[in-house]
Amino acid sequence: MTRAPNLNIVPFVSVDHMMKLVLTIGTERFLTELAEYIEDDFKRWESFDKTARVASHSLDGVIELMPTSDGALYGFKYVNGHPKNIRDGRQTVTAFGVLADVGTGYPVLMTEMTILTALRTAAMSAVAAKYLAPKGSDTMAIIGNGAQSEFQAMAFKAILGITKLRLYDIDPVATEKCARNLAGAGFEITQCKTSQDAVEGAHIITTVTADKQCATILTDNMVGAGVHINAVGGDCPGKTELHKDILTRSDIFVEYPPQTRIEGEIQQLPADYPVIELWEVMVGKTQGRRDPSQITLFDSVGFAIEDFSALRYVRDKLTATGLYVNLDLLADPDEPRDLYGMLLRHQSVMAYG
Amino acid sequence: MTRAPNLNIVPFVSVDHMMKLVLTIGTERFLTELAEYIEDDFKRWESFDKTARVASHSLDGVIELMPTSDGALYGFKYVNGHPKNIRDGRQTVTAFGVLADVGTGYPVLMTEMTILTALRTAAMSAVAAKYLAPKGSDTMAIIGNGAQSEFQAMAFKAILGITKLRLYDIDPVATEKCARNLAGAGFEITQCKTSQDAVEGAHIITTVTADKQCATILTDNMVGAGVHINAVGGDCPGKTELHKDILTRSDIFVEYPPQTRIEGEIQQLPADYPVIELWEVMVGKTQGRRDPSQITLFDSVGFAIEDFSALRYVRDKLTATGLYVNLDLLADPDEPRDLYGMLLRHQSVMAYG
Repeated sequence: MTRAPNLNIVPFVSVDHMMKLVLTIGTERFLTELAEYIEDDFKRWESFDKTARVASHSLDGVIELMPTSDGALYGFKYVNGHPKNIRDGRQTVTAFGVLADVGTGYPVLMTEMTILTALRTAAMSAVAAKYLAPKGSDTMAIIGNGAQSEFQAMAFKAILGITKLRLYDIDPVATEKCARNLAGAGFEITQCKTSQDAVEGAHIITTVTADKQCATILTDNMVGAGVHINAVGGDCPGKTELHKDILTRSDIFVEYPPQTRIEGEIQQLPADYPVIELWEVMVGKTQGRRDPSQITLFDSVGFAIEDFSALRYVRDKLTATGLYVNLDLLADPDEPRDLYGMLLRHQSVMAYG
Repeated sequence: MTRAPNLNIVPFVSVDHMMKLVLTIGTERFLTELAEYIEDDFKRWESFDKTARVASHSLDGVIELMPTSDGALYGFKYVNGHPKNIRDGRQTVTAFGVLADVGTGYPVLMTEMTILTALRTAAMSAVAAKYLAPKGSDTMAIIGNGAQSEFQAMAFKAILGITKLRLYDIDPVATEKCARNLAGAGFEITQCKTSQDAVEGAHIITTVTADKQCATILTDNMVGAGVHINAVGGDCPGKTELHKDILTRSDIFVEYPPQTRIEGEIQQLPADYPVIELWEVMVGKTQGRRDPSQITLFDSVGFAIEDFSALRYVRDKLTATGLYVNLDLLADPDEPRDLYGMLLRHQSVMAYG
């Protein structure tokens, strides 16, 4: 067998490179292509090795590892969720991830995933809405105008053709920021004073708030017939956004039930409450929206396969863009059994180098 | 609250820097200090959040994530095990790891761990032997003279005072390499033609072979009274090194029983077979060696807390040595909720930068 060059080198996409990658490709095209990767992977759902994420909870938040594999590639993401971080200038959610070759176990990509997670979460929401939102949807309410909100808006514009946004946040400064960032992107934007106001006339309601508590962002009376709810913010144990009565009036679509039952809105419902797996809708095994007056709910918590798709997508863009550096991550002695000898010989590098 | 500078920057220790770190500190001192960190952490065993590693098995090998936390720090290691890698010039085991702050979820260190794993495995073995090996041990047999063998030898020299080595490998080239690498390190080395020959007169028998199969490196008749066996190579389902009869004649000491029962030598025994947890010996809850004729067995599989100790140790050495680079791993917008704005503003950096 021939020996590949630079076995020890792993391409690394920094935050700076990720931003350049998104801007070079264009945010809408990036989201659209990423959505295609996600859809492709969901359509071969049964070929994945799936596990609920491995979470380490503390008083202040959670640190999670999210691994999955399709038998040829293995991916995992490290991600935290610390709502109080915002107080001292940190991100609530930060992440990085790795893609590896299953045949050798060697990593083939390491990348920042804070920005990438925001993009993949938005792309996933838009893919779900493609199957669930009422036909001809053009208006979306976004309740919670924090770090994820603009990404959601851009994904729904690129993939669903949403052109009208109704924004609401308990902090008007956040709404102002969201509107400012989206100015010139082709939306008609309404800044709303209440969440009741925001949902007025919306075909799609996106909830994307950040509190790590049981909250009721939407009450039952706010949700009219025919609406699609994209519930993004409720994503860990004890964190929900919707009143339970909304859930029982909706058809509920989820990524991976064992994880969503622990982390999603449906943690408020009995463990055997019927939900529909999104991948089954995508492959045509189950119907998505079947009736204009139906309330559909995507109970989004974020699943490892979406990160896997995002890692695959970024990796496929590396060669053409060159937006990465090489990381000296893996020890690679000339003779694999001679790790210690490699260390010993490094002495001369240090003495003379 | 004041804002710490460079929140987005994570120190990264490359393979090159790790080698320099080990050589700057000195291999024996590094192993001795690392052993102290491991012992400190084992002595506060009950304060750790413990879980068996999360493994993704394939035909060719396994990829594992090994997380743990003491409530203040969180650590995890990515590690693969691919015995066939050696055929095309790759390492059987490669690894990297991350230490993070539990309070914020932010990583505080990323490091190569291929070399570091070899060091911590050896340090762990020596710590166990400190409590289990017969008094006055000076002779160790090492069966399997691959990538881990010299590290084991150095740790047992530094921590136990082993001065005589009896080496055996089915491939004499590996034995030759091991002996060459250890020449001048202060050992009296005997290269043996058979494993029977190697164990002759040894107080400690270290088995560290790499096959991913049930193998019998030691048979029952080879193990005399009073010996300590340091069984390092059997470390995943289906991979064992010792004949079952040896196990039933030994007192068996393990790191974390739920993991060892799946991966260690004791996978050959009933699930309720009595074993002793090493941390209990270290804190004096249970006796280690109690009799000169007793056969003690450390059924080593490698546990997340040892990696946690290693990550802590490396982190504590960073400031004094400066042997790291800063990695732009975490997105850090001026306003935490303005991730999209940070991306937008990067456009001007690209246009003018």
